[in-house]
Amino acid sequence: MSTPTQPAIVLLSGGLDSYTAAAIASELGYGLCALTVRYGQTHVQEIEAARRVAQALRVRRHVEIDLDLRAVAESALTGVGEVPMDRDLSTVEGIPSTYVPARNTIFLSLALAWAETVGAADIFIGINALDYSGYPDCRPEYVRAYERMARLATRAGVGGTDFRIHAPLQHMTKAEIIRRGGQLGLDYGLTLSCYVPDAAGRPCGRCDSCLLRARGFAEAGVADAALNR
Amino acid sequence: MSTPTQPAIVLLSGGLDSYTAAAIASELGYGLCALTVRYGQTHVQEIEAARRVAQALRVRRHVEIDLDLRAVAESALTGVGEVPMDRDLSTVEGIPSTYVPARNTIFLSLALAWAETVGAADIFIGINALDYSGYPDCRPEYVRAYERMARLATRAGVGGTDFRIHAPLQHMTKAEIIRRGGQLGLDYGLTLSCYVPDAAGRPCGRCDSCLLRARGFAEAGVADAALNR
Repeated sequence: MSTPTQPAIVLLSGGLDSYTAAAIASELGYGLCALTVRYGQTHVQEIEAARRVAQALRVRRHVEIDLDLRAVAESALTGVGEVPMDRDLSTVEGIPSTYVPARNTIFLSLALAWAETVGAADIFIGINALDYSGYPDCRPEYVRAYERMARLATRAGVGGTDFRIHAPLQHMTKAEIIRRGGQLGLDYGLTLSCYVPDAAGRPCGRCDSCLLRARGFAEAGVADAALNR
Repeated sequence: MSTPTQPAIVLLSGGLDSYTAAAIASELGYGLCALTVRYGQTHVQEIEAARRVAQALRVRRHVEIDLDLRAVAESALTGVGEVPMDRDLSTVEGIPSTYVPARNTIFLSLALAWAETVGAADIFIGINALDYSGYPDCRPEYVRAYERMARLATRAGVGGTDFRIHAPLQHMTKAEIIRRGGQLGLDYGLTLSCYVPDAAGRPCGRCDSCLLRARGFAEAGVADAALNR
């Protein structure tokens, strides 16, 4: 008798981190329920990438949610201020202008609702605390506090469900993530990391996210398939 | 020299609890930023009530956010299952079918984003742990866990902002809330509590929310102005 596959919610942005985190969930045997949020991001082309990734991962379901955060969350990624270009990442300090207030908290809360609805205890998110560690909502202490809150917030939590927020990339460098993706056979050509892609979805090559990605591929000694898409 | 008014985010549903909580925030001297979410609720007429209440409170701003939770959050209030009718509230146990998975967590997260954007440290929510206490996300321990998470989640929190979730009605009965509203001169005729109002926004009088409201007005010895709207 086979055990039915446990569902897990995976937050899928269309970038390489969330793709890798979701693939790790799949490798662990979870049935994937992928959640993508159209939140008013400047790089809305990442939604197309999320669809490609969801298909490649053969997710059980892919839900896209419209939630325009521009009215409440000011950020360079929601159109307020400039996305920094051509920066030397090794000297960047503090929280970048691409920080979106409470974004991970909002996304995890939507994932929590869906987890409770489908009877999942597990949520996967591709956050990373090492490279580009300026975001407060990527830190392990944040994730632990979120889990504790989630158990108190929900009917399932009251009933004993021990919600877990999995952040399998949290302590990996971008190069390590890319190597892990290679082992998993992932096609990073499907993904988009750029904050300001052109209309066709081609990366700018100059924003922090592009630079970080390029450095990761260089360190991993792998070509970035997305550059020749 | 006068001190500029501190902003506070108030979650405004259109019901009497959130109206009262917001009025308490106003009395405390906060400038109100009101947030209402159109989440796919069966009783979408409450949005009209929220607009009336926002106007009566002379809020600084009123933002309405569209976030259709029906794809991720199953509840009688998002159209899955029946809203219970004609129940004896004194014998009701457990978490009702009108519980919406992670709803308060999602709403508070949107409020948190806005708080950080406008430089507010204070969020007001009209939750109540006494009457009709089946909802896990109305309990004090949940609110404390949320605050702790919020401070870790945000740039402002890292910078020292001590986010506070105010739930001034948490330990009041419905009758006490109504009496408090009377002292504040609130017009509850503007509000709508019903889960299944008719198209004109008139309450059914039979759902848990209507019954709880009716009991509260009866205990407070006050007529409910909304019944003659």
